[in-house]
Amino acid sequence: MTTSETLRADGRTPDQLRDITITRGWSKQAEGSALIEFGNTRVLCTASLTPGVPRWLKGEGTGWVTAEYAMLPRATNTRNSRESVKGKIGGRTHEISRLIGRSLRAIIDTKALGENTIVLDCDVLQADGGTRTAAITGAYVALADAIAYAKENKLIAKNAQPLVDTVSAISVGIIDGIPMLDLPYVEDVRAETDMNVVVTGSGKFVEVQGTAEGAPFDRDELNALLDLALIGTTQLTQIQRETLGL
Amino acid sequence: MTTSETLRADGRTPDQLRDITITRGWSKQAEGSALIEFGNTRVLCTASLTPGVPRWLKGEGTGWVTAEYAMLPRATNTRNSRESVKGKIGGRTHEISRLIGRSLRAIIDTKALGENTIVLDCDVLQADGGTRTAAITGAYVALADAIAYAKENKLIAKNAQPLVDTVSAISVGIIDGIPMLDLPYVEDVRAETDMNVVVTGSGKFVEVQGTAEGAPFDRDELNALLDLALIGTTQLTQIQRETLGL
Amino acid sequence: MTTSETLRADGRTPDQLRDITITRGWSKQAEGSALIEFGNTRVLCTASLTPGVPRWLKGEGTGWVTAEYAMLPRATNTRNSRESVKGKIGGRTHEISRLIGRSLRAIIDTKALGENTIVLDCDVLQADGGTRTAAITGAYVALADAIAYAKENKLIAKNAQPLVDTVSAISVGIIDGIPMLDLPYVEDVRAETDMNVVVTGSGKFVEVQGTAEGAPFDRDELNALLDLALIGTTQLTQIQRETLGL
Amino acid sequence: MTTSETLRADGRTPDQLRDITITRGWSKQAEGSALIEFGNTRVLCTASLTPGVPRWLKGEGTGWVTAEYAMLPRATNTRNSRESVKGKIGGRTHEISRLIGRSLRAIIDTKALGENTIVLDCDVLQADGGTRTAAITGAYVALADAIAYAKENKLIAKNAQPLVDTVSAISVGIIDGIPMLDLPYVEDVRAETDMNVVVTGSGKFVEVQGTAEGAPFDRDELNALLDLALIGTTQLTQIQRETLGL
Amino acid sequence: MTTSETLRADGRTPDQLRDITITRGWSKQAEGSALIEFGNTRVLCTASLTPGVPRWLKGEGTGWVTAEYAMLPRATNTRNSRESVKGKIGGRTHEISRLIGRSLRAIIDTKALGENTIVLDCDVLQADGGTRTAAITGAYVALADAIAYAKENKLIAKNAQPLVDTVSAISVGIIDGIPMLDLPYVEDVRAETDMNVVVTGSGKFVEVQGTAEGAPFDRDELNALLDLALIGTTQLTQIQRETLGL
Amino acid sequence: MTTSETLRADGRTPDQLRDITITRGWSKQAEGSALIEFGNTRVLCTASLTPGVPRWLKGEGTGWVTAEYAMLPRATNTRNSRESVKGKIGGRTHEISRLIGRSLRAIIDTKALGENTIVLDCDVLQADGGTRTAAITGAYVALADAIAYAKENKLIAKNAQPLVDTVSAISVGIIDGIPMLDLPYVEDVRAETDMNVVVTGSGKFVEVQGTAEGAPFDRDELNALLDLALIGTTQLTQIQRETLGL
Repeated sequence: MTTSETLRADGRTPDQLRDITITRGWSKQAEGSALIEFGNTRVLCTASLTPGVPRWLKGEGTGWVTAEYAMLPRATNTRNSRESVKGKIGGRTHEISRLIGRSLRAIIDTKALGENTIVLDCDVLQADGGTRTAAITGAYVALADAIAYAKENKLIAKNAQPLVDTVSAISVGIIDGIPMLDLPYVEDVRAETDMNVVVTGSGKFVEVQGTAEGAPFDRDELNALLDLALIGTTQLTQIQRETLGL
Repeated sequence: MTTSETLRADGRTPDQLRDITITRGWSKQAEGSALIEFGNTRVLCTASLTPGVPRWLKGEGTGWVTAEYAMLPRATNTRNSRESVKGKIGGRTHEISRLIGRSLRAIIDTKALGENTIVLDCDVLQADGGTRTAAITGAYVALADAIAYAKENKLIAKNAQPLVDTVSAISVGIIDGIPMLDLPYVEDVRAETDMNVVVTGSGKFVEVQGTAEGAPFDRDELNALLDLALIGTTQLTQIQRETLGL
Repeated sequence: MTTSETLRADGRTPDQLRDITITRGWSKQAEGSALIEFGNTRVLCTASLTPGVPRWLKGEGTGWVTAEYAMLPRATNTRNSRESVKGKIGGRTHEISRLIGRSLRAIIDTKALGENTIVLDCDVLQADGGTRTAAITGAYVALADAIAYAKENKLIAKNAQPLVDTVSAISVGIIDGIPMLDLPYVEDVRAETDMNVVVTGSGKFVEVQGTAEGAPFDRDELNALLDLALIGTTQLTQIQRETLGL
Repeated sequence: MTTSETLRADGRTPDQLRDITITRGWSKQAEGSALIEFGNTRVLCTASLTPGVPRWLKGEGTGWVTAEYAMLPRATNTRNSRESVKGKIGGRTHEISRLIGRSLRAIIDTKALGENTIVLDCDVLQADGGTRTAAITGAYVALADAIAYAKENKLIAKNAQPLVDTVSAISVGIIDGIPMLDLPYVEDVRAETDMNVVVTGSGKFVEVQGTAEGAPFDRDELNALLDLALIGTTQLTQIQRETLGL
Repeated sequence: MTTSETLRADGRTPDQLRDITITRGWSKQAEGSALIEFGNTRVLCTASLTPGVPRWLKGEGTGWVTAEYAMLPRATNTRNSRESVKGKIGGRTHEISRLIGRSLRAIIDTKALGENTIVLDCDVLQADGGTRTAAITGAYVALADAIAYAKENKLIAKNAQPLVDTVSAISVGIIDGIPMLDLPYVEDVRAETDMNVVVTGSGKFVEVQGTAEGAPFDRDELNALLDLALIGTTQLTQIQRETLGL
Repeated sequence: MTTSETLRADGRTPDQLRDITITRGWSKQAEGSALIEFGNTRVLCTASLTPGVPRWLKGEGTGWVTAEYAMLPRATNTRNSRESVKGKIGGRTHEISRLIGRSLRAIIDTKALGENTIVLDCDVLQADGGTRTAAITGAYVALADAIAYAKENKLIAKNAQPLVDTVSAISVGIIDGIPMLDLPYVEDVRAETDMNVVVTGSGKFVEVQGTAEGAPFDRDELNALLDLALIGTTQLTQIQRETLGL
């Protein structure tokens, strides 16, 4: 008989998230911040709000939200060279930074934000799979607090509603033919198919990025992964709401 | 009464591809090449085959397939600065290069390829939407010819089968609530949801990348887009097979 | 007896150009464009016209013409790394870009151009010797069409004459002691002396760049090469005029 | 009457350290690690040990210790651009990385280390003055644990003594004519003279870096600052020893 | 019996400077310049004065003084790669440039300088130890002449006093237990402790940078080095004054 | 009546060189060196000889000669940014470095040089026109001394003859219709046509680079410039020979 203990190294059932912890306000410097943990994955998310927008947006009356993702050199099991020392940013870093930015912009009304810029920095302090999904989920909390800060400090009108929804993200994958939720590194490297799904609090998709790492996948597998992802994001949404006291 | 002519500026029905042309062997220099056109989008795909593999793969007995995507500065309606002049590659370029590489590797048996490296260069000579999907579709043809070349020149055993399937890609999107196939630039910028789908000749998914550009999308919309994409890739597969005389 | 067939691999006489083809308006995006072919050498030249000039020219009432030359990674027989990936432009690229810019500026009256900037992008799609001379010759056609476009669109006064002459260029070299015109790659690598000559339609020199690749050359050899070059540029001027319907 | 409360914003006496906390083993990935806090300054120090040495040291039978310092973009009160995004490392970052490396090498017997390399990464998660001195003090703890790890894993002989002493560092400065210990940011910007002092556990100097920010300083002021620094490093040494259970 | 000849390869006593030569006005182009020689170390210092200040200082009514240090590739015994070719500036170069800038700013009243910028370029033409101290000492002369030039040309008011003191620098070190002044390269590499001291004409410290290259140093050694440094800077101050005719 | 004094600002006749000075062995570090002056233009040329060749030449039994040209930031009348600070080398620098390298290789028998590499660094300390021609002329002297050094130190066989000729270079140009020799900056900027000519001691051409800065030039003008150039290089050859005691 196969028990869930033998299925996953950490004893979880296929549809179970790792322990999720969000430490709101971890940074004393940023307008909003959260240290988010998905098991051993730890990402520090800060939201930096500045009045004004980039030149190409000036005078449009809308704000701007963007994100930068990075990993400390020893976040992973073996040390990686620093991108600053190499003098260039790798493709993976670029790709994830862009994904985080798009995901957060999907739930922002930039008109309501006014001519303010929010930069979300997501720095992976420790990596054990799912860093991009943890980053999106934590960045939402930092963003929400930065917007609250902006209202308190009258950078945004009291009754403006720049946040039109919440957003969270989770990874899912097929390992030995079984769809599983929230993959740690050991599972991630074995997954035949790997999918990152970004979902709003109201249950709609912002991003669906499925990749056949091993064999191509069919429509049924795709559907099973999406079902699983929604189980995860529903719980993450709940944790975000509790963290923010909504 | 709304007719299909009024729906799309170029008069196509929602599920219709643009004119697709593949000029096989456009380059006299490369081991495999194709100039592919999706309407006004023109991408030159070359496959460069070299014996040997990168250092980190040496002695593993497997080959390597990778891709680089780029756009000429005046491929687009207004000129973009050259990435070589700026001294760095943008995030979008990185992201698409990685997507093309993963897509082609999905249908390659690297063991059967032996210790050979194939670099797929996809240079957009003229851009009118769908450049990444044209690149993947054209790169397959270049790749197939480079492998044929390798067999003729005994770099790969006569009976080796490095190509386990074919692969093609198409963009789909929702515009004014209507799912549409193969978006040119004018439609792409208006799409609420935008999806690039990479599919094998046997109809399985290699990549599904859906992004809510405007509003988040629900499960039904996702399904409608996938249906449409498969209509397109089925036809592209047919064109690829005809081009290669399979 | 030595016949011309044995002199040159492609059967040309020493003073004969390769087949020259200019496809005017190859690009649907640029204000002016030409795909130029010198035998197997193919260069896509686009001219991008933008109102306004660089900061250091503002308010002078004069325009600006500049050029960028580049080669696709697999334009050549073996693949070269992309300069964008290396993060820097090589000396050869710089040198040729500057040569093309100077050559075109020599036949432009920048006062008559008004405060407009024209960037000439010359991208080598396939290389078989003489890429810089093909680039200059094709860039002239693209430039002429961009200026015609500017007049039609009233960016330049109808009666302004920014083009004061035409310009074309050809390579010549000494191989086994014999001066030859328009060297393909196989001849170029064997040349003792190599010269690129840029000449106006009226037969005056814009650039003369002679280099002793093998042995230094004397005055007689220099003169023989210049004579040969003028035979070539006279014909190129004629082809340019026919292409433009002058 | 002036009390100590009015002297320093945080109520400390001039010769008092801020609260010092060292969380040993903060990282699950690195061979040695410490999250060190000097008041609100928080630096994550990891020590990555790899068998082998850089090429220029090969075959010498000695090891290598080096350090990299960096700051998260929002460690400070206003956001700084990432050095990876800018594509180059700033002078201050270089300077501090070199200082940390020299400081740790001063207490290492590289012969006893054998042909192993240890990279100390000191990433400032939150900055409030004294980040370089916190980094040195924390890096020592990470280094000691990495060496212990190397012994356990037989990368270094059980009886080898690569660590010949301990090392810690503190900042001192003169503010309104009064020498003060361990400056937070608000004091640092006001200091006329600013000094960073690196001291071994046995009380000898490894580095003395005094800089006149406002007015040049005389010999008496220099002596007063050194006296104060030694008070601080004596306490830091004690905290390091307790943390490591020595 | 040990004589001074055997102590130092060049026969100097421990407290003796090398031959110091300052060629004022070496450059015909710069507003101020000096070729300074400390024995075989030769540094060309130029001061470039431009009206106006960097953007971040505009409207403050103060000037700006900054410095750049560099070494010719063959200034040293074996050739180093050019930093321009490598595409990045090394840590040592950054560190010394910053040190020179701080040292000169310490004796400048930027208010009296008015909104003018002075860039001090210190290029090492030949290196034999002490290049940074020679650079600071020579840069002072170039700076003084640039300020004189500014007064003559009415860029600064005739009675303004931007220079509040003079500044010079010297290296000291402990070799075989003996403190020595002004180390050439052969001594520098053997020094257990190495210190660079920047001192004003009035004898106050601007920078004290002591580094234990071999063994950590104690308070007595530190004091002996400072005593020696002041002997050197007193003489350098005298030479500067004579050079400038003060 | 027009006298030669009124023709040229410095009173020279059209066919007269500026004062030429070559200080052989200026550097105590390099295997060969020369500080060369063409009037106020001063270039420090060093030749660095190292046993061994670049990877791509290994085992061919031939040596390698290459050159790097650079300008100090304040060599010119207004300060230019350092290329190391900008992080990239400009086109002009690249172009001149390549020209110097080709010019010196033209008179080297790389077989006779054996597997040795010589790097010629030509650093412009002061610029007043003709820096590239001064660099080539001075680099020859440095090269000759480096080869003499190699023979003395048995890196090259005593009877090997790596130098097959001497080489020097001069600029010529047409100003107000009059061909002139050795242009200083004030003439260079006014020249309609500008030509750099590199000539061997035996009077053959290595490089002829003529550029129409103003109006295109005809065959007669080209010939007049070449005549003038040969007058200059004949004298430079004589000065080189005297300097080297040949």
